Amino acid sequence: MTKWLPTLKTATPEEGYDLAVKMARVAVKMTQPDAAIRDRLRPEYAEDSTALIASSQVVATHFATVAAANDYWKDA
Amino acid sequence: MTKWLPTLKTATPEEGYDLAVKMARVAVKMTQPDAAIRDRLRPEYAEDSTALIASSQVVATHFATVAAANDYWKDA
Amino acid sequence: MTKWLPTLKTATPEEGYDLAVKMARVAVKMTQPDAAIRDRLRPEYAEDSTALIASSQVVATHFATVAAANDYWKDA
Amino acid sequence: MTKWLPTLKTATPEEGYDLAVKMARVAVKMTQPDAAIRDRLRPEYAEDSTALIASSQVVATHFATVAAANDYWKDA
Amino acid sequence: MTKWLPTLKTATPEEGYDLAVKMARVAVKMTQPDAAIRDRLRPEYAEDSTALIASSQVVATHFATVAAANDYWKDA
Amino acid sequence: MTKWLPTLKTATPEEGYDLAVKMARVAVKMTQPDAAIRDRLRPEYAEDSTALIASSQVVATHFATVAAANDYWKDA
Repeated sequence: MTKWLPTLKTATPEEGYDLAVKMARVAVKMTQPDAAIRDRLRPEYAEDSTALIASSQVVATHFATVAAANDYWKDA
Repeated sequence: MTKWLPTLKTATPEEGYDLAVKMARVAVKMTQPDAAIRDRLRPEYAEDSTALIASSQVVATHFATVAAANDYWKDA
Repeated sequence: MTKWLPTLKTATPEEGYDLAVKMARVAVKMTQPDAAIRDRLRPEYAEDSTALIASSQVVATHFATVAAANDYWKDA
Repeated sequence: MTKWLPTLKTATPEEGYDLAVKMARVAVKMTQPDAAIRDRLRPEYAEDSTALIASSQVVATHFATVAAANDYWKDA
Repeated sequence: MTKWLPTLKTATPEEGYDLAVKMARVAVKMTQPDAAIRDRLRPEYAEDSTALIASSQVVATHFATVAAANDYWKDA
Repeated sequence: MTKWLPTLKTATPEEGYDLAVKMARVAVKMTQPDAAIRDRLRPEYAEDSTALIASSQVVATHFATVAAANDYWKDA
């Protein structure tokens, strides 16, 4: 999982959002490195609205950081 | 779902709030891409006050970012 | 629900707090537009300390944004 | 409950913390205005570690705002 | 519990982190002032991973404030 | 556990992310200092999607602080 986050700069807000999603997922991978277990958990939480909303919250927190790093893409 | 977030700029705080709502929902879609499952989950969490409040929290986090991106619409 | 958020500016911190409460509630309304259902949920969560605290958290997040928009009412 | 928040300025970080605690509680009062019900809920959540930690989270969020409003009491 | 927070300034990030831990705990004490009850709750939540993670979240929020107050110890 | 956080500066965003993960874990250790108990809890929460997502949220909050401390690695 080296070199997965070389920079916080993205060309557009949408790419920044995708990066935030990635950043949210990497922490899960680092706490549960076993892909087989993650694959087993995935269908469960993907049908659990509480888990889906909690995931969205993590994305929102990372997106705030990515947006600040890009000066909110004001020049875009 | 391409080109759903071309900019964080909005004309008014209210449009910024609507954008924050959209941003909160997109992460859910990305984690649960199956629209049929999302449709099934929706009535459940829409009648669950904990889920409603948690959704509102995600909106609040995104709105903070959108507001900063618009310099709080100080010139509006 | 148009024109409910014309500006983030308020005269005092207290009015800013009231605005934050309103902002927290609007997201709930947007997710659950049916007033009859919301009225049914209200007594439940108003007697559930976890839900009350979670609501207070959303208000705190919005208040941070409103306060920043008003430069913390430093001139008040 | 008028005039409970005339300013975010406090003389010290500690007074700022006390203000943050107050700010966290007011939202609960606004959602559950019935003091008798709040008094009934209080012993329950005061012995529930999850609720205590969640309350502490709300205080932390408000304290961040109060601290920024006071420029972190750098001159104190 | 007077004079427990005279300043947000610390010499190092590590001392700032310790301060954030203290700040997270004080709110719990203020909501549950009875030390005997807190002592009874402690072993429960200290073996509850959800509670441990939630506590860590409060610390993270306070640390953000302490770090900003110290300009991120950039001169350290 | 002395000298575990000498600085918030890191060479890259990725090292900053690793630091945020460490910062999230230290608070857990400080609340539950018994390594044997933590080891017992670990497999439980590592297979609990709610706990995994909550952990990711703590990392996101710390990462925001680390990123700000590094001026978002804009010069990297």
